[in-house]
Amino acid sequence: MSQIRDEVLKANAAYAGRFGDRGALAMPPSRAFAILTCMDARLDPAGFAGLVEGDAHVIRNAGGRASDDAIRSLVISYKLLGTREWFVVHHTDCGMETFSDEVMRRLLASSLETASFGAEGWTDPGGGGSSEAEFIDWLTIHDRKASVASDVARIRSHPLVPRRIPIYGFLYDVGSGRLEPVAETVPLARAS
Amino acid sequence: MSQIRDEVLKANAAYAGRFGDRGALAMPPSRAFAILTCMDARLDPAGFAGLVEGDAHVIRNAGGRASDDAIRSLVISYKLLGTREWFVVHHTDCGMETFSDEVMRRLLASSLETASFGAEGWTDPGGGGSSEAEFIDWLTIHDRKASVASDVARIRSHPLVPRRIPIYGFLYDVGSGRLEPVAETVPLARAS
Repeated sequence: MSQIRDEVLKANAAYAGRFGDRGALAMPPSRAFAILTCMDARLDPAGFAGLVEGDAHVIRNAGGRASDDAIRSLVISYKLLGTREWFVVHHTDCGMETFSDEVMRRLLASSLETASFGAEGWTDPGGGGSSEAEFIDWLTIHDRKASVASDVARIRSHPLVPRRIPIYGFLYDVGSGRLEPVAETVPLARAS
Repeated sequence: MSQIRDEVLKANAAYAGRFGDRGALAMPPSRAFAILTCMDARLDPAGFAGLVEGDAHVIRNAGGRASDDAIRSLVISYKLLGTREWFVVHHTDCGMETFSDEVMRRLLASSLETASFGAEGWTDPGGGGSSEAEFIDWLTIHDRKASVASDVARIRSHPLVPRRIPIYGFLYDVGSGRLEPVAETVPLARAS
């Protein structure tokens, strides 16, 4: 048995035991907004944005990038579940700043096993990997404020995103817990 | 000014004020696992799986599906940040069970505005939409246990996923807060 699996199920039993009236929550987010952010373990969106269960959609991937899949999720969030405002939150000290597509492809061609990061950058244990990484855009980040701005802009200009929805871009500081505004688009046109 | 934006920033200031020593957390998840789950507002992975900041990667999208982008994130999680076990968690009463690609394409061709769900299914306010939805696989769910199993299987068989990583598939019950095991793959081969 996995120790982690046991720990998760034990924590889950405790959570279910104090579940209270959360079972009555409706499917549409009650505060009608969505947050797109990074999968980073140090980020707790419920904590840093003040959410309780039922409040808001939370979409997370490596980097908090406006990938096609994140846009799929945001469009469902608005079109079917009525969110009205979106937040894009990247963060300081993001792992996505530590490599490039070229580096990731080299590491994965060397082996699938976990690489090490040190003074010379990423080094790999080797032993044989896969060339499949060549076919993936890893969506790395070179300039963290620019990545927030470009992701907000990409969402803004997507043909399935309504012009009226505000999109707020923030950087989360993992050292202080603070959100810093970076990019913001006001609605492009008012609904009549 | 947006009321929601103000509320989020106010909650964030309070969070930063009680941030304590979280600023010293390291980038790699300290408990070395990752959870892929749905963006649904009723789900709080930190709550239902017993996480604190720094513990685990959390990846979320509409449905908690093993999309290409989720796999990009999981591979980064393992290859660069050393997670060792992965959880795939879908849930009861998921919005992704309420429509099909065909329905979503019809609704978005009718308008980009929020649709309504009632006895006749989804109805749209109309007024003019976009055919862009034809080009997106919306990753809807027809059978929730089958979707967990197929997503676990897709990750298992991906060429960039190491054979040794265990993948646990669960259904989260939004009525009770409980995780139910649904599908699980043991490591395909032991490391020598």
